[in-house]
Amino acid sequence: MHFFYTPDIHVGQDIYYLSEKEFHHAAHVLRLKTNNAVTLLDGKGNIFEGRLIRVDKNVCEMEILNHIIKAKPKYQVHIAIAPPKSGDRFDFFLEKSAEAGVNEISLLVCQNSERHKINAGKEMNVLVSAIKQSANPFLPKLNEMINFNTFINSCKTFEGQKFICHCQTTKKTLLAKAYTAKCDVLICIGPEGDFTSAEIDIALSNNFMPASLGSFRFRTETAGINACMVINTINQISE
Amino acid sequence: MHFFYTPDIHVGQDIYYLSEKEFHHAAHVLRLKTNNAVTLLDGKGNIFEGRLIRVDKNVCEMEILNHIIKAKPKYQVHIAIAPPKSGDRFDFFLEKSAEAGVNEISLLVCQNSERHKINAGKEMNVLVSAIKQSANPFLPKLNEMINFNTFINSCKTFEGQKFICHCQTTKKTLLAKAYTAKCDVLICIGPEGDFTSAEIDIALSNNFMPASLGSFRFRTETAGINACMVINTINQISE
Repeated sequence: MHFFYTPDIHVGQDIYYLSEKEFHHAAHVLRLKTNNAVTLLDGKGNIFEGRLIRVDKNVCEMEILNHIIKAKPKYQVHIAIAPPKSGDRFDFFLEKSAEAGVNEISLLVCQNSERHKINAGKEMNVLVSAIKQSANPFLPKLNEMINFNTFINSCKTFEGQKFICHCQTTKKTLLAKAYTAKCDVLICIGPEGDFTSAEIDIALSNNFMPASLGSFRFRTETAGINACMVINTINQISE
Repeated sequence: MHFFYTPDIHVGQDIYYLSEKEFHHAAHVLRLKTNNAVTLLDGKGNIFEGRLIRVDKNVCEMEILNHIIKAKPKYQVHIAIAPPKSGDRFDFFLEKSAEAGVNEISLLVCQNSERHKINAGKEMNVLVSAIKQSANPFLPKLNEMINFNTFINSCKTFEGQKFICHCQTTKKTLLAKAYTAKCDVLICIGPEGDFTSAEIDIALSNNFMPASLGSFRFRTETAGINACMVINTINQISE
């Protein structure tokens, strides 16, 4: 199955022309031909199945045969993470969390952050590739980088469970035990040097629960991926 | 905390000299000095805490102050995986599964495998780095590449639960629901093109249970990491 990301497609369209970038991928990388089956994702839950009816030098024309509307997930997963210094590790987090169905990603600038900027265009490409690869019909929302304190203040109206995962020895509950299945959830993951005590205090005074991911000392990106997978596992067994 | 891998250390030793490789890491990369605290892992559950008493041009000498014996995990996790074509993706699997405490890794050659060789020395280095980073006292065992059918036959005496995760639409149970907490577990993860029906049949006739990791279409390395994290989550909530 070949998936393409087509955010500009409209429900009801019979014919669709791939964008220049997706055309290149279809015609030159995958070398698709007329009659090959293709699937389009708009990233908002619509899936369009069809077949190519014309592939020439500049154009991939597709006939749309089926429209599938995927129900929104019953719970929303929002990961707020301080991006690690290594771009590869950060990309890996984005790819794996998108494969695991994360809905929203916020990027924190913390006191111990080693990274204060990201290339949003490049990172969106990582997310788009991941949803195409994993047939995830929902493109995660990627928010701009934000100062930790500002972010915590902006979460006052969030109605799900809020967690801050950290490595300090103060009292924490395992995320796997503290999370209630089917709840919207927001999980903060700190930078390589962890959150500071002051940052943890600010989060706790804003109704974040202190959480642990277990006895392992995870890298930042592993902690982010693990948090997504813990939430999925708890929801899977609750069904 | 600075961790070093020292498989040749003996219980009862008061003084330890870092190997050439670990010496380079301590003296030149981390630039440790006399009196810095260091921790040694033998990969078999022994942790030695101490401090450097001499760092000169060629030698790092350490005084051992504490010996901690970590109990073996209550359950053993064995992942048998067909390594993906991309070396980076395979390294990520090794690193993340070691961070998540996998105990044994087997490397399968399947009918759809795109990779038939690995560089065992390089891959062991990835595992060693991961246990140092994550303070995991147990170095995972990395087995040589093995033909899928031979591997399945060799598992007849395995006494835990055996799963084969695949993407075919035949009946499967969610790994998260089928796994019994505290059980030893062996999970097979297929190559990019999945296991063939014949391979799945061989596994099923050898008492492997067909399992699913959920509705997401994971890449091989994501599936391997996810399997480890599902097992950890189920064990965490059972305690």
